[in-house]
Amino acid sequence: MTHTLVLLRHGESQWNLENRFTGWTDVDLTPNGLREARRAGELLKAEGYDFDLAFTSVLKRAIRTLWTVLDEMDRMWLPIAHSWRLNERHYGALQGLDKAETAKKYGDEQVLVWRRAYAIAPEPLPPGDPREADADPRYVGLRPGEIPRTECLKDTVARVVPYWNEAIAPAIRSGKRVVVAAHGNSLRALVKHLDGIGDEEIVQLNIPTARPLVYELDDSLKPIRNFYLGDQAEIEAAKAAVAAQGKAR
Amino acid sequence: MTHTLVLLRHGESQWNLENRFTGWTDVDLTPNGLREARRAGELLKAEGYDFDLAFTSVLKRAIRTLWTVLDEMDRMWLPIAHSWRLNERHYGALQGLDKAETAKKYGDEQVLVWRRAYAIAPEPLPPGDPREADADPRYVGLRPGEIPRTECLKDTVARVVPYWNEAIAPAIRSGKRVVVAAHGNSLRALVKHLDGIGDEEIVQLNIPTARPLVYELDDSLKPIRNFYLGDQAEIEAAKAAVAAQGKAR
Repeated sequence: MTHTLVLLRHGESQWNLENRFTGWTDVDLTPNGLREARRAGELLKAEGYDFDLAFTSVLKRAIRTLWTVLDEMDRMWLPIAHSWRLNERHYGALQGLDKAETAKKYGDEQVLVWRRAYAIAPEPLPPGDPREADADPRYVGLRPGEIPRTECLKDTVARVVPYWNEAIAPAIRSGKRVVVAAHGNSLRALVKHLDGIGDEEIVQLNIPTARPLVYELDDSLKPIRNFYLGDQAEIEAAKAAVAAQGKAR
Repeated sequence: MTHTLVLLRHGESQWNLENRFTGWTDVDLTPNGLREARRAGELLKAEGYDFDLAFTSVLKRAIRTLWTVLDEMDRMWLPIAHSWRLNERHYGALQGLDKAETAKKYGDEQVLVWRRAYAIAPEPLPPGDPREADADPRYVGLRPGEIPRTECLKDTVARVVPYWNEAIAPAIRSGKRVVVAAHGNSLRALVKHLDGIGDEEIVQLNIPTARPLVYELDDSLKPIRNFYLGDQAEIEAAKAAVAAQGKAR
């Protein structure tokens, strides 16, 4: 028996648009991001996809993307599991800063290291920083030390993969058709795990916003193939746009 | 320890507006219904209410009301449990018919019996009726005979109360702050159960759309008091509007 899994990065957010480091900041979709999400839902429906269960983060840009997709598919009643483990990579002290200004200040190379080095995290949030998530009710159930103050992609992988193993994979194995609506780096973590991609390569992988990424998995959940739904030239352009972010301009 | 529970009927739906019997038909909110839901969310937030868990039906007018409320309260990440047991009362062969036309054809009294007699259900959907829900994926997990072909309020009470006992009440007892977004008659069923209202009286109780109904419950979940949030004169007018539906005009 083969399984179908759909991964979906949220549509354009306000800080994607403003070119700022977002991380765990709970910014919303732009009107364009909402349109992207609607188009993703229409596309999934038109191509005959259907789901039994959805997973998403606790951040509204992913949740609103998922809600919009389920609305378009007439599946608002589907169960949705939320987890902080699917949140975007925590961007530490960079959260809220303009990517281009940060690049001017520290140089393109330093920013590229922070954005793309697998195991090098930006500076952590200083103690008492107003950006820290500790008092937020959505994180009160976490154990001490689980709430990050910064993350590199390696850290994100380390908290996403257990959720895959304990929640998502068992659901798929039980025969459920699953969609995961999440973020650039939590999806990189999943793709790295699924496809066995190396640390050097995964940081070069650019997942475009709100384009359904379909995985066909075998019985042991090994990928048989994967592909993006939709116009392929347009998807390549969207990937290139993601890659170009964070340069001084 | 006292518990706070909030009940919320969905905002105005397309068929509320068109004065048609809705039941399990999955009609959406009107723009006015969406505004009502937003106002309910603003009100709950302004009055300092907060939740840990939400329950709703599998019908989009209730789900969209809940989503809108959670969005206004910045609580999109809260877990939501969906159950068909919180659906509106099934209206049998009346589903889709115009209330005023039905009243002209059968008389106000017959319609009042169908709408308000506790134990008299309208004619069931005939076999093979296109309105039957059996093939709908949201109901495929139900046991044979669980999907109604018509219901009186007594039938609705009989499927709502087990869900209260098995899902909602245990969550409240465990300390969770709960909101239930549902329908005129599934909420009547809950209110009847909570307040021990008699069969004759409950059919006279009119729950206005999208007005948060707050219950304070004692340790054994007996109501200490209940009240609607918001302007009380406006709430009385909304109740009267519900009561006036279904008359020939």
